[in-house]
Order: sequence, then C-alpha cells, then structure tokens
Amino acid sequence: MTGILSGLRVVEGSAFIAAPLGGMTLAQLGADVIRFDDLAGGLDSDRWPVTKDGASIYWAGLNKGKRSIAVDLRSPKGRELLTALITAPGENAGIFSTNMPARGWLAYEELAKKRADLIALNIVGARDGSAHVDYTVNAITGFPMVTGPVGHQGPANSVVPPWDIATAYAGAMAILAAERHRRLTGQGQRIVLPLQDIALSTVSATGYIGEAVVNEVDRPRLGNEIFGTFGRDFRTKDGRWVMICMFSDRHVDALAAAGGFTDAFAAIEKKTGVDLKSDAGRWNARAEICALIEPWVARHTTEEIGAALKKAGALWAPYKSFRELSADKELVQDNPLFTVLDQPGIGSYPVAASPLQFGAVPREAPRPAPTLGQHTDEILSGILGLPAHEIAQLHDAKVVGGPR
Amino acid sequence: MTGILSGLRVVEGSAFIAAPLGGMTLAQLGADVIRFDDLAGGLDSDRWPVTKDGASIYWAGLNKGKRSIAVDLRSPKGRELLTALITAPGENAGIFSTNMPARGWLAYEELAKKRADLIALNIVGARDGSAHVDYTVNAITGFPMVTGPVGHQGPANSVVPPWDIATAYAGAMAILAAERHRRLTGQGQRIVLPLQDIALSTVSATGYIGEAVVNEVDRPRLGNEIFGTFGRDFRTKDGRWVMICMFSDRHVDALAAAGGFTDAFAAIEKKTGVDLKSDAGRWNARAEICALIEPWVARHTTEEIGAALKKAGALWAPYKSFRELSADKELVQDNPLFTVLDQPGIGSYPVAASPLQFGAVPREAPRPAPTLGQHTDEILSGILGLPAHEIAQLHDAKVVGGPR
Repeated sequence: MTGILSGLRVVEGSAFIAAPLGGMTLAQLGADVIRFDDLAGGLDSDRWPVTKDGASIYWAGLNKGKRSIAVDLRSPKGRELLTALITAPGENAGIFSTNMPARGWLAYEELAKKRADLIALNIVGARDGSAHVDYTVNAITGFPMVTGPVGHQGPANSVVPPWDIATAYAGAMAILAAERHRRLTGQGQRIVLPLQDIALSTVSATGYIGEAVVNEVDRPRLGNEIFGTFGRDFRTKDGRWVMICMFSDRHVDALAAAGGFTDAFAAIEKKTGVDLKSDAGRWNARAEICALIEPWVARHTTEEIGAALKKAGALWAPYKSFRELSADKELVQDNPLFTVLDQPGIGSYPVAASPLQFGAVPREAPRPAPTLGQHTDEILSGILGLPAHEIAQLHDAKVVGGPR
Repeated sequence: MTGILSGLRVVEGSAFIAAPLGGMTLAQLGADVIRFDDLAGGLDSDRWPVTKDGASIYWAGLNKGKRSIAVDLRSPKGRELLTALITAPGENAGIFSTNMPARGWLAYEELAKKRADLIALNIVGARDGSAHVDYTVNAITGFPMVTGPVGHQGPANSVVPPWDIATAYAGAMAILAAERHRRLTGQGQRIVLPLQDIALSTVSATGYIGEAVVNEVDRPRLGNEIFGTFGRDFRTKDGRWVMICMFSDRHVDALAAAGGFTDAFAAIEKKTGVDLKSDAGRWNARAEICALIEPWVARHTTEEIGAALKKAGALWAPYKSFRELSADKELVQDNPLFTVLDQPGIGSYPVAASPLQFGAVPREAPRPAPTLGQHTDEILSGILGLPAHEIAQLHDAKVVGGPR
C-alpha cells in the first residue's frame, strides 16, 4: 500500500451510497477501510444493478479495496468484537464511519468509553435524525421543478445521486479534518453530517436562495440551456447530440472559428446591441446564436462537428450512453484512471481508481470489492490478536462468518 | 475563529464553481482562505444570478468567509507579491488551490522554488489539461440520456452541477490528505484533480459501467422511478407532487400503515408472487404498487398526505420550488444551518454555514463574501510584512487594488 493515506484505519458500518462511497474514497487513497456487515450481508448487498446470477454490481462498485468482516450484529459477543475493532489502539486507528443509527452499542458515548479520542462520523438523513435518501432530499431542493424539457409539467428527478456523492466526499474530508484536530490536540469527537444539510448548503452556495429572496423570482425551467451565459444541446445530421457552451471570450472566438461565425456574431452584436464577450450578452442573444448554430450542427455529422470544435478549442462535448462511454477509447479504455479488473462473482470490466493524482505517491490501481467476510479471520487475528482456536469457536458459535 | 481548521491558510486562484466551493468549504470550517483576483475581478465575478443592480448573487454564494486581495495579474510585481503570498512560511501555510492554468509563474515547479514543501491543488477539466465545465463533463457520463420523462427524446441536462460539487469536496479532502502527508513526512506535492475523472469514477462506482459491460445493456430512461426498488413522484389533490420511496422492510410497513395498504400489499404479493420486502420484489411489482398509491395520493391534499406519511415514518418528501424552500420554516427559517446575513451590495437573505457539525468545536456562523480587494492591505501588511508606505506605492502604481 503506497497511497497518500497509507497507515490510516477506518471502520465502517454502512449501506447505500454516501457512507460506502466515502469509505471507498479513503480506501482508494491507501487507507485500511474495514466494513462490517451482518452474517446475512447488509441492507444493500443485493441492490440493483445485479448480474443474471443476482450478484450486485452496485455493491461491488461502492466497496472496492475495502476489507470485510462478517459478524452477527445482534449477538452481544459480536457487538463486543466490533466495539473492540472500532476502538482499537493506535494513533492512526480509532476512526468510525457510519450511516447506521448511532444508538445503543453504536452510540458515540458508548464507544468513547473504550477509546476517549475516538473519531466517529455519523451520516444522517436530516438534522433531526429522520431517514432520508438522495431522492427525498432532492425533492425539497427545488431542482426537480426546473429540470427536464421546457413545457414538462411536474418534477424531473436526478438520476445521478448528487447529494450522496457530495456527502461521501464531504464525509471523507471531515474525517481527515478531525484526524488533524486529534493529531494536534489529542481530542476525538463525533461529527454529524445530514444529507439534507449538504443539499441545502449547496442550494445556498449556488445562489438559488439568494435569487429567490432578493430578486423574488423562481428560476424557470430552461430545458438544456445554461442560465446566464450560453450553452445548449444541438442535434447532428446523424441524429446524435452535442453540448456546446461559451463561458468566456476564448470560447466565443473558438466557436466562431469552428463554424465560420465571426461575421455572423458581429452582426448579432450590431442587431441586438449586446456584447457577446459578456455572460449577459450571450444570454440575451441566445435565440440569435442558436439560430446560427442549430442549422450548422444539423448539416454535419457528429464526427465532422466534433473535429471542427476540437480543432478550434471550443467548449463542447458529445452526449454518450453508458454503453458508448464504457467502450470509449479516450474516456475509459485508454484512461489511466481505469483498470480492467476481475470482480469475483461478477466478471471483468473497467473499474476506476481514485480521480485524485497525488504527486508524492503513485496512483493505486483499483482493487476488487471483498466478498462478505473475506477478511474476518485476518482482522480478528491481526488487529484483535485472537488466537486461531478462539476464532474457530466464534465461527462455530455463528458469531462471525465468512468468507461467503 | 474557532473552526476545526482554524489556523490553516489556503491561497486560492479560482473561478466558476468547483474551486471556489472547495475553498469555501475549508473557509467555513475555520481556515483562512485568501482568494486573489485581477484588479477588474475574476472571470465569474458578474455571473448570474445577479441583482437588479448587477451584483452577482452567484459569486457571493461561493466565496463566503474568504479574504480577498486584488492584484494586477499581468504585472511582474503583482505576480511577485502573489508568489510570496502562496509560498509564505509557516507549517499551516504554503497551500495553493487553483483551477487557473498552472503554467508560467503559476506552475508548480516555479512556485516550489520559493517553498519546496508547497502543496498545490490543480483542478483541471480533463486529464490532458483541456477545458471542461460541469455541462460538458455531464454529457459524456451517460446520465443525460436517461434523465427526464419517459418518452423524451435526446438528452436532459442536470441543473444541479453534480461534478463541480463533488470536485469541490474532493479537492478540499485532497488538500487535507496532502497536509497530513506533509505533517508526517515534511514533503509537499502537486495534486491534479480532473473534473472529468471525478465524473467517470462516479459512473464506475455507481455500477453503470459494470452493468453496461457485464450485462450488455444500456439502462433505459425511467422517468422519476428509482431503478431496482420502489420510488416515484405522485400528484396530490391540490395539484402538487410528493416523492414516495420504499428502500427497506420498515418503509414498506410505514407506507402500508399510512395508506391502509396492508391487505392490498399482501394481495399484490399473492397475485404477482413477489416479496415486497425485497428490492427486486418492489421493482417487479411497481405497476401494481403505483396503482394503489396513485389514487390514494390523488384523493388527498398535500397536507393530508404529508401528515399520514410523516406519522407512519414513511420515506417521502414534498417537492418544493426554490421560493417555497427559501420560505420553509423547518428546512430554512428554523434550521440552525442558516443565518440571515447582510451581504454587502446584495441584501439580507438566509445563508448556509457548513453542513458538517464537529463535536469538538461550535459550528461557525456563515460570514459574508468579501468585496473585491477588501483585504488587500491587511494581507500585504499582516502576511507579507509590507510597511504602509510601500502598500500605498503599490496602490498608486495600480499593482494592487481594493476595496471596491
């Protein structure tokens, strides 16, 4: 293990996306992330997409590079073992990440009795502790009411789970902030991270609450247009779509060069009185700009349009399906982010490492997700110091399990 | 300043969302984040939404709690001052975050000549350094082709910028990981974070590439339905929408209790042969479940439905517009995340603090964004140790500016 977080150990009790992805983020940077699950697996261990044999591609994607210990979570002995694991000594250990209810034996106060400087991250739904998932959090943000095609009635949900993803990275960051604090002061702490507050703070940061209160307007549904500057999808001759944007002077010049629009852009400026080198100018003249670009894109194939835009240095991208992306040479096949990995029980496919490239250490290749309880024995032995016969007794008593 | 990162200093040269939001994330946890801008302001200083007077609500939202220094970025003297600021001594300083091209005087190699253990985070578009924004990155992920109502042709863009948000938190995390490494080894480093790779690693983590390659299918467009379990929007009697989900046994029981569906759910299980306590069962019987819930929701007002679902502990949420959210008592007005703040030049509105609650320190209230160059003089004096007459000369020579 050569990652930037090599040596750090995090114990995780998690399900769904935010908490597992946060742990995987740390594992892919070299931390020893141990997830515990009940003998029967977690709430999400069979979650779709699954293979034709029912193996969860979803679970494998979110738990790469972790170690797995399987324990009967209802048995007092199982809970005692996990408490010992969570609170094991060592300046790089004693870190716990969970989105399970932090009650009873998993309450911070209980765990801290065994290790006073414990760091525990509790990801919760809302600040009152009530359950929420990305979909229920997204509903209240306002975004679904402005997503989707103009004229669509009602909400359009996000397929990307933005709040889970943000919570994963924010949680990983919070663990490192608390670990820094502990290194400097010796003090541990509980961190509470509500999924709903991540979403609300983002609605605030991106100006939607300020706009609603100060300007007293609700942003309308704009379809695929980018509010306040220029950007939209366009359809090519071969029936595909490309996204074309202009965020700066340079993008205006590049698009003008790609399509031969220099004179036409000047004519738009003259006719409408706007400055296309400003965000407001591009936004106000967007109908005129689209009237130029739409027929140009429609007259050319995706390949022709892509070549012209790329050559000119324009800000654009082709739209892809998941299968097209998966087979894409530049984005996946030749991208050093990806390694074709054999995930036991699922098969071989390109799997991403951490998107972060640290200059001081080589990027770690992705490692497969564990099978349930794959590392039960080595964890009981290596971290808790249990002798082989005790581990065998724990298996016999069905207190621990695995590998499955 | 009492935040968990109190004492840490980060210098930022940034525009748009990812880099500024990453810096703000650190600033809201107590770090001293100093953003530098050209005398005329940055690329995004006027970005929409703006007030009727043209002040950017967007910029204010993403730069809260930072300090601002305004410098002529083309002048050798200005560059020399910023190099000194970026590489200033101190074990908590020497951290630079940017999405500006890391070339010339901003190249890591140049800056590291002045401070060998510098930490520099470079957020880039794609791994080859080419420019990308959230919209062009999102196009290639596959998500727009499955977002929006069933039957919609073509892409539906995300209004939330998911990749910018993830990059912001991932970047903040990376800075803390590198700072930990420097504390342990004395070594600085450059970190490269491509916006495109954040998106690609997420497509991988959430199983879409595995599904496409192993199962050889492209996930279809499912409208507002949650793939592989149960969840969808429903319209109420008063013409509003609620999201209702079932992710676990508990959610099935709660929804059954809220709507009186216990017998009807049992009848569905009998008729279809599925187990509604499993994800696959709920997914396969979703048409039958919807046929129950749809008329129930349609017969009741949003208030009635909400009261019944809340009482039963169901997993649900009402959809809200940005204005409704902004005025919501529970989510915003009474949420301790928010403080009504007077943002100079814009007005008073609820503004969010960090969504992270660290047990060891009180949560910092949000602070306004700076005006351009608001802290020029105190930074030149307090960090670079320049005497008042030199600072005055720099103003006279138009090398530095502000406050505007």
